[in-house]
Amino acid sequence: MELDFAKTEGLIPAIVQDAAQGDVLMVGFMNQEAFDHTVRTGFVTFYSRSRQKLWTKGETSGNRMKVVRLRTDCDQDSILVEVEMEGLQAACHEGFRSCFFREWQDGAFTEFGERVFDPKTVYGK
Amino acid sequence: MELDFAKTEGLIPAIVQDAAQGDVLMVGFMNQEAFDHTVRTGFVTFYSRSRQKLWTKGETSGNRMKVVRLRTDCDQDSILVEVEMEGLQAACHEGFRSCFFREWQDGAFTEFGERVFDPKTVYGK
Repeated sequence: MELDFAKTEGLIPAIVQDAAQGDVLMVGFMNQEAFDHTVRTGFVTFYSRSRQKLWTKGETSGNRMKVVRLRTDCDQDSILVEVEMEGLQAACHEGFRSCFFREWQDGAFTEFGERVFDPKTVYGK
Repeated sequence: MELDFAKTEGLIPAIVQDAAQGDVLMVGFMNQEAFDHTVRTGFVTFYSRSRQKLWTKGETSGNRMKVVRLRTDCDQDSILVEVEMEGLQAACHEGFRSCFFREWQDGAFTEFGERVFDPKTVYGK
């Protein structure tokens, strides 16, 4: 029962869902190494396609994500991680609780919801 | 405010979540055409990487997924679709409600949950 990393250049989508509230917080990609790191440490670690290296979510902001449950799907080519958020209870680097803060309305994606934090104060940019 | 299909050969992950119960049902990939088709018809349509064509979920089984809400994330390179399931209330071609019916336990993925339907009777195989 192995994960199937063959389809997308060694990367599979990893969906992060809040274990208590059930909202989808973000999606990243994992390779085998990121998956192993996530299991070993108990904190969500992705493979960053832009930086081309492992990326433990929250390593800069402190908003780490503690693994509560790890699942895979029928084809074993995606991961669902249920987590407990640490820190500011916000997954998104733009300061929102969830990265999915844009909703399709009348033919366009429109921002909704309120920021939990100001990105400038957390990332200094 | 356009979706960013550039990163993964024109495909972005599309996560399907039950609008009422909040469980994550499956993940597929969409290209621009699949997204447009989903919006136009109101039913979830993916791009099948194995068959290399559009694939409206449920076209064979009748278990279509009606779009309730469509969201995108901060980088606009993934989609979250909240749906109402039609038919047998099962997303997975293996007969489970959710494709995520395997959970990581003691170093391996283990099946849990019960099938909603027998794939043989639905797909005839």
